[in-house]
Amino acid sequence: MDVEKLLQQVKEGTVSIEQAQQALKSLPYEDLGFARIDHHRKLRTGFGEVIFCKGKTKEQVAVIFDRLAARDTSVLATKATKEQYEAVLAVCPQAEYQENGGLITLIREQPQYIGEVAVCTAGTADIPVAEEAAATAAFFGANVKRYYDVGVAGIHRLFDKLPEIERANVVIAVAGMEGALAGVLAGMIDKPVIAVPTSVGYGANFHGLSALLTMLNSCADGISVVNIDNGYGAGYLGAQINRLVTGKGEE
Amino acid sequence: MDVEKLLQQVKEGTVSIEQAQQALKSLPYEDLGFARIDHHRKLRTGFGEVIFCKGKTKEQVAVIFDRLAARDTSVLATKATKEQYEAVLAVCPQAEYQENGGLITLIREQPQYIGEVAVCTAGTADIPVAEEAAATAAFFGANVKRYYDVGVAGIHRLFDKLPEIERANVVIAVAGMEGALAGVLAGMIDKPVIAVPTSVGYGANFHGLSALLTMLNSCADGISVVNIDNGYGAGYLGAQINRLVTGKGEE
Amino acid sequence: MDVEKLLQQVKEGTVSIEQAQQALKSLPYEDLGFARIDHHRKLRTGFGEVIFCKGKTKEQVAVIFDRLAARDTSVLATKATKEQYEAVLAVCPQAEYQENGGLITLIREQPQYIGEVAVCTAGTADIPVAEEAAATAAFFGANVKRYYDVGVAGIHRLFDKLPEIERANVVIAVAGMEGALAGVLAGMIDKPVIAVPTSVGYGANFHGLSALLTMLNSCADGISVVNIDNGYGAGYLGAQINRLVTGKGEE
Amino acid sequence: MDVEKLLQQVKEGTVSIEQAQQALKSLPYEDLGFARIDHHRKLRTGFGEVIFCKGKTKEQVAVIFDRLAARDTSVLATKATKEQYEAVLAVCPQAEYQENGGLITLIREQPQYIGEVAVCTAGTADIPVAEEAAATAAFFGANVKRYYDVGVAGIHRLFDKLPEIERANVVIAVAGMEGALAGVLAGMIDKPVIAVPTSVGYGANFHGLSALLTMLNSCADGISVVNIDNGYGAGYLGAQINRLVTGKGEE
Amino acid sequence: MDVEKLLQQVKEGTVSIEQAQQALKSLPYEDLGFARIDHHRKLRTGFGEVIFCKGKTKEQVAVIFDRLAARDTSVLATKATKEQYEAVLAVCPQAEYQENGGLITLIREQPQYIGEVAVCTAGTADIPVAEEAAATAAFFGANVKRYYDVGVAGIHRLFDKLPEIERANVVIAVAGMEGALAGVLAGMIDKPVIAVPTSVGYGANFHGLSALLTMLNSCADGISVVNIDNGYGAGYLGAQINRLVTGKGEE
Amino acid sequence: MDVEKLLQQVKEGTVSIEQAQQALKSLPYEDLGFARIDHHRKLRTGFGEVIFCKGKTKEQVAVIFDRLAARDTSVLATKATKEQYEAVLAVCPQAEYQENGGLITLIREQPQYIGEVAVCTAGTADIPVAEEAAATAAFFGANVKRYYDVGVAGIHRLFDKLPEIERANVVIAVAGMEGALAGVLAGMIDKPVIAVPTSVGYGANFHGLSALLTMLNSCADGISVVNIDNGYGAGYLGAQINRLVTGKGEE
Amino acid sequence: MDVEKLLQQVKEGTVSIEQAQQALKSLPYEDLGFARIDHHRKLRTGFGEVIFCKGKTKEQVAVIFDRLAARDTSVLATKATKEQYEAVLAVCPQAEYQENGGLITLIREQPQYIGEVAVCTAGTADIPVAEEAAATAAFFGANVKRYYDVGVAGIHRLFDKLPEIERANVVIAVAGMEGALAGVLAGMIDKPVIAVPTSVGYGANFHGLSALLTMLNSCADGISVVNIDNGYGAGYLGAQINRLVTGKGEE
Amino acid sequence: MDVEKLLQQVKEGTVSIEQAQQALKSLPYEDLGFARIDHHRKLRTGFGEVIFCKGKTKEQVAVIFDRLAARDTSVLATKATKEQYEAVLAVCPQAEYQENGGLITLIREQPQYIGEVAVCTAGTADIPVAEEAAATAAFFGANVKRYYDVGVAGIHRLFDKLPEIERANVVIAVAGMEGALAGVLAGMIDKPVIAVPTSVGYGANFHGLSALLTMLNSCADGISVVNIDNGYGAGYLGAQINRLVTGKGEE
Repeated sequence: MDVEKLLQQVKEGTVSIEQAQQALKSLPYEDLGFARIDHHRKLRTGFGEVIFCKGKTKEQVAVIFDRLAARDTSVLATKATKEQYEAVLAVCPQAEYQENGGLITLIREQPQYIGEVAVCTAGTADIPVAEEAAATAAFFGANVKRYYDVGVAGIHRLFDKLPEIERANVVIAVAGMEGALAGVLAGMIDKPVIAVPTSVGYGANFHGLSALLTMLNSCADGISVVNIDNGYGAGYLGAQINRLVTGKGEE
Repeated sequence: MDVEKLLQQVKEGTVSIEQAQQALKSLPYEDLGFARIDHHRKLRTGFGEVIFCKGKTKEQVAVIFDRLAARDTSVLATKATKEQYEAVLAVCPQAEYQENGGLITLIREQPQYIGEVAVCTAGTADIPVAEEAAATAAFFGANVKRYYDVGVAGIHRLFDKLPEIERANVVIAVAGMEGALAGVLAGMIDKPVIAVPTSVGYGANFHGLSALLTMLNSCADGISVVNIDNGYGAGYLGAQINRLVTGKGEE
Repeated sequence: MDVEKLLQQVKEGTVSIEQAQQALKSLPYEDLGFARIDHHRKLRTGFGEVIFCKGKTKEQVAVIFDRLAARDTSVLATKATKEQYEAVLAVCPQAEYQENGGLITLIREQPQYIGEVAVCTAGTADIPVAEEAAATAAFFGANVKRYYDVGVAGIHRLFDKLPEIERANVVIAVAGMEGALAGVLAGMIDKPVIAVPTSVGYGANFHGLSALLTMLNSCADGISVVNIDNGYGAGYLGAQINRLVTGKGEE
Repeated sequence: MDVEKLLQQVKEGTVSIEQAQQALKSLPYEDLGFARIDHHRKLRTGFGEVIFCKGKTKEQVAVIFDRLAARDTSVLATKATKEQYEAVLAVCPQAEYQENGGLITLIREQPQYIGEVAVCTAGTADIPVAEEAAATAAFFGANVKRYYDVGVAGIHRLFDKLPEIERANVVIAVAGMEGALAGVLAGMIDKPVIAVPTSVGYGANFHGLSALLTMLNSCADGISVVNIDNGYGAGYLGAQINRLVTGKGEE
Repeated sequence: MDVEKLLQQVKEGTVSIEQAQQALKSLPYEDLGFARIDHHRKLRTGFGEVIFCKGKTKEQVAVIFDRLAARDTSVLATKATKEQYEAVLAVCPQAEYQENGGLITLIREQPQYIGEVAVCTAGTADIPVAEEAAATAAFFGANVKRYYDVGVAGIHRLFDKLPEIERANVVIAVAGMEGALAGVLAGMIDKPVIAVPTSVGYGANFHGLSALLTMLNSCADGISVVNIDNGYGAGYLGAQINRLVTGKGEE
Repeated sequence: MDVEKLLQQVKEGTVSIEQAQQALKSLPYEDLGFARIDHHRKLRTGFGEVIFCKGKTKEQVAVIFDRLAARDTSVLATKATKEQYEAVLAVCPQAEYQENGGLITLIREQPQYIGEVAVCTAGTADIPVAEEAAATAAFFGANVKRYYDVGVAGIHRLFDKLPEIERANVVIAVAGMEGALAGVLAGMIDKPVIAVPTSVGYGANFHGLSALLTMLNSCADGISVVNIDNGYGAGYLGAQINRLVTGKGEE
Repeated sequence: MDVEKLLQQVKEGTVSIEQAQQALKSLPYEDLGFARIDHHRKLRTGFGEVIFCKGKTKEQVAVIFDRLAARDTSVLATKATKEQYEAVLAVCPQAEYQENGGLITLIREQPQYIGEVAVCTAGTADIPVAEEAAATAAFFGANVKRYYDVGVAGIHRLFDKLPEIERANVVIAVAGMEGALAGVLAGMIDKPVIAVPTSVGYGANFHGLSALLTMLNSCADGISVVNIDNGYGAGYLGAQINRLVTGKGEE
Repeated sequence: MDVEKLLQQVKEGTVSIEQAQQALKSLPYEDLGFARIDHHRKLRTGFGEVIFCKGKTKEQVAVIFDRLAARDTSVLATKATKEQYEAVLAVCPQAEYQENGGLITLIREQPQYIGEVAVCTAGTADIPVAEEAAATAAFFGANVKRYYDVGVAGIHRLFDKLPEIERANVVIAVAGMEGALAGVLAGMIDKPVIAVPTSVGYGANFHGLSALLTMLNSCADGISVVNIDNGYGAGYLGAQINRLVTGKGEE
């Protein structure tokens, strides 16, 4: 519905005031110009659409993927199983799967990558979550650099990389077990650190609770936390801040 | 120690290679030029120093406050009790206390405020934590706008404020009890949302656990979380992102 | 046993007072006229019987289903696996299975549907639990309307549906992850909201704890909560309130 | 703002289409006719206003109470301390305090009580929470009957009262420690049971967690749960259902 | 009401069958001869009455104590504060207080003590809970022997006492912190061990959770557990088993 | 080693005092006459031996079972899988398996059953744990009566059985979900109640935590609790108390 | 009892073999020469005795302190309040109190300090627990060096101290909040690290749970953990290892 | 990089002071002579390398194993599945697998075993974790003695072994369920006890939480704890302390 047109019709008398009142009440919220609701959609539209696969049947994933692909846009599906990928493949043969990270992607056109997001992991077992973050940040237009296996148990490996890491606009720190990497990073560089606790470990890690609490209680400045294993959330937020910092945030 | 001078002395032969090797080993880390470690300190120095009072005796707080004040810098003390303030007052009579927020401040010179950070609360009982966030963000040079009592139980109050809130570079969402405000905000605006769960509530809020989990599990994009009641952490991070976005982040 | 007949026999002297005393002591409780104990059974009897399958062997489920079906009544089995359904099918070939929701049904005769119960979900992964609720409410005679995928991350989708949702006598809100849907709904409509947290999500959702706590701590008025994933409980309670409101509660 | 008048002005040409578009965008949400947002407010207005005191300073409580009292309406303040009451008393001398329940009330005019809500407790220590529920239900116009100390440890006390309890439209069951009362009640009567777990007990009651989990896991039909110690929430919901059942729910 | 008399009246025709039916329905449950409900009351009556003071006001405790004392019976009040005792003292000057254990007692007549219950503690800080158990067991007629400070950190102290401890019919093991005493005892003697976890300790004892879990997970045979700090529960159960074993259980 | 013989040798001078001292130090503890350590073993020996299978490999179970069977004694294996049973069967063809309860038994000779232990369950899904308890109590010589599916959601089923249940010397109450059965039973009969929480249920039952906490917090007298799903522990303790009460406890 | 003398008497015939057997059975365990039970006591005896004050009344502390002091030995009391100290002072005027650490000490004679134990803290609020550890280690004869406020948020402060810290035989790492110090230390030095989580912090530190889990999940080698705030335990263990390493462990 | 050579070049003028400064800044941390970082590596190098397999793909494990084996060193892989072993076997045919303990080993040359580490378990189900500890301690050069199935439920089995156990320099106590073994051991011997809680058990063991809390709350002196099921950590720490005590710790 077009508000301008409606008002025009009211002015011209082809629509009565009562009719106009009624139309305005049932107006889809977004048509009122609350464009902020659509900013996210807009941001995504520039790059493609995202599907969160966990808890959806493989048929549901395939249908949604297919419908989005039909719009000639790039598509990213996260937390996807191989079974879900195979269902997608049947309807969309160009879709690719990255098992390490659980990602299905259909890239129509590369975005113009800007700025830089650094993705660090404490260990090798944290890499799938980091890949989810990295792929997401790239999908939304950020240059991404990976620094894997730089955890605090061998902290000198981290120090060697610090000058390089600090060049990024935002740092994503992915760590399970004790989860200390994020706090140590935030204590040493002056960029926002997005901490991603992972469920990597066993015993008293309590499926990621340990790393989550460590990160929430960090005494360092400039750190915030997303859900356990939530690589997507960190990647999106990282790309969003990166975009704002490089001045492309305001369209 | 001065590395340049040392190398000069090696070159001139006034220091032997063995002596130089020994000196380099015991070199204070920062003297090696790992300046990134000091970025934080530098950032703060421009505005003043911060003391976290919880767990310190009132005597310790007073001594630290006094020593920092002696450097002719602004000082911010967080999570401060009235008793701690009185001890500070005895040594530093210009220090001021904001009971609602637990803040002791000594502002030598106003920073030049840049950008904008929005601080929202779900209810009135969340205001002390929000004030800690707001005062911290301002202390580190951000313009701050407050939107209090806009929680989801009366969600139209929030909608009225959305166009205004969205103008900020970063939004701090402070909420206890169910903690849904942060996710709703992140779902409607396209700026980074820093979620601060508070311990406000009773019963199954489990001292803030409820709001913390809500925020960590938000399905909205662009949200991250700090510790329960951690207004300072959100304020610092908000100011840091705000500074990066307004282009003052790179010194 | 028939109390009236017993008293008659006492009066007539064919049963001694001692015998009558003994009989009354061992009387099945319900025979004493504590009819309230049987209200539930009565309510059900009008519509059919219910079996909770979880924790029962497939043989147990099949036997119970068969015995109830033999009474010529409708039968509803919840939390049923496909294996349990197959065992039922062997003894009761008309039984149908709804995999999405885990329901086995044998409907002899449609009840006369009254009033209206609205069933809303935050996301598509919450649909199985919502279907359990919807099927249960319908089984007990309520008209049911479904509003799926109206969660707070895209809150305008919810607003479009509000006028319609509010026409129901009671609203069932099914949500996992952050679980904010129930509180937002209760804040915007003036009908009882039955909140069903689901185990949908991962990481710090802790198998539904996150959504459960969110819902229990909601600041909105007119909301109450059932067990995680307990679609049946919400559906029964919804039908019960709906029945009372439409004036069929008092038989 | 008056939408009708605005449209009239558009028609007459005294307001331009651009101006009208702008006005409609910043329109307070409720002016669009989403009156359902105000249902709660309307419901309350008929009876008075409510203040949740926990986490507010005594000054804040007094100011809000005073402002509401100035509208010539009844006022109910819950979870109020004696100190908060004294601050209220200073500005509103007719306000009364019920220490057992933590309630401050200012009743201008008795509502016309309708229907019936039963409030039951397991023990005497649960009475303060029950009083909060009872006072709230009465404040919103329900007849309230109290059945205290009828817990399952002496279950015959409960049975004596069952015929009477069942006459209510809705039953509020308040219990701490093991919290079994709610499930037993729901198993024996055919009315909605609102379960209120309390923090009464010690040790492994974990501040009400025990009763909360018991109630959430009840195998009985027709039961739902509110937050630990949340007498207000149960009282409001009880009054709301009672009003719907007695046919006064639809205004 | 007298069932025999009622039936007599039915027989004689002075009460109609309808009237008798009605009377039987509203009959107090115990009047039906379900005497087992009253066994507890009977058991207690022989020795005195018990009041659980926690969560009751001092006025409530004093009134209940006074009413029970008026029946010329012994009275035991558990978890009583000094303030509650003083309120009792005002109405019942013979009442005595045992601060270590929180017990108010009014002993009219010593019971004839039978059998033997052993009460053991791991440390001295567990003694208040042990005293509650010991006083309760004695109140209900058991001979009680105390073995304090025999925890596993100095396990030889326990071994010296084993032959003596084993003479009891039932052993109450009171322990906080690690709580290992109960399992070690049950592994070495062949009598039922009632384990009482206490909240003694700090840090990761989590207010008694540690000792509770230890006791629940004991690999020894013949052990069961009561609530944290529940000396009364253990004392009652100990006396009950002791009574059954000594053949006085059946009255 | 034979202490008497050693002392004889000391007396005769064939063993020196130093040698005797040394021998006494390394003496196996039980040889010193701390016969109480062996009471358990003795009790079992009269009836047979028990193997706890969980966490053992099928080979380990088979070897242990075989060795015990070689002593011509009865053998009970608990928490046994079908695979473990098959491994046992290969070495001990008379061994029988009760899948519902996970029990492998080899009964050489029926014990002379004494007294009576009642085993009650709230629902049908609790039966496997109840069977473990019942089989264990029988294995150790108790007459066992089963009362299944008498939970509080249909409490009249329980009341019918009460007079019968109360004849037992000890009652084992097995319940999952809300777990209220144990407290209701203890409130109505005057025998020790051993409460067995089960992991039956879903969602906020948290794998049995809900029932466990309910039982620990029961306000009834005469109740104690064993580990979640610990049918064996309850059965052993029940048999032990039953034996003491029937006067066979003292050998 | 003296075993040698007993055997002598058996040999001489002044004690019969039966009498000797009886005496040996009831022999206090330690008299049998199981000297290992007394090693701890012996270790302490060389330096003094220790009292754990938490949960003891001030009278109990004073009596125990006085009795130990009477043996002319040094005495250490941990977790002592000022009130407990004052009670001790009344009976033992030379006793001293260290409020920061909650320690009462009576040092008769300085032990000869050996080896070296390093005690590090992350922040200043961790110092009381560190002081408890340091005082305990010194009490048991270790040289102690303190490195306070070297947490990972300013990790260069830690690096400066590493060469010095590494000279110790064992390192005690005391940290609250995120608790990362212990893992970082263990990753950088090759000595046993005893990690002491503290309850310092707020919110999601959950009274020390956060630091505890961090430390338990550390990926570094050579680290183990004691209870939250357990400075004593770490100090004792540190002194014990230090003593073994310096070769004084075997007396 | 070679610092000595660099300084030589500065002295000779072939490298400018600016170049030298730059080189020193980016110097790998270890090249600066912070040899302590490499102590661990050095310690391991003497004996072989370790791979933690959990969370790594079988391909990753095989590649890392192969690369380490290529250095002609011994290799230990922990928490390895059979699938991971098979992948290793394909590239390294001499590798051996110990299923009970999840260990892959490639021993090039036996280390010269020194000192003694005792590894004790409470039950047979704890043996896999104990084997991981024992194999690790042996891998790092300790003599290891095993004492399995000596838990507190049959505590005399433990006492028989005490004199032998105490000869070790350090004791590793592995226990699940109640986990009391570690505290009992620490109370009876005067050597450091490393407690390893295991996830052995069921129900309220909460996957090892029970044993973990028991061990953390032990009242005995000289005990510390590692993560649940962390046999490797205990084995490494045990070997480290053993090495220090036998005087081989200082290289």
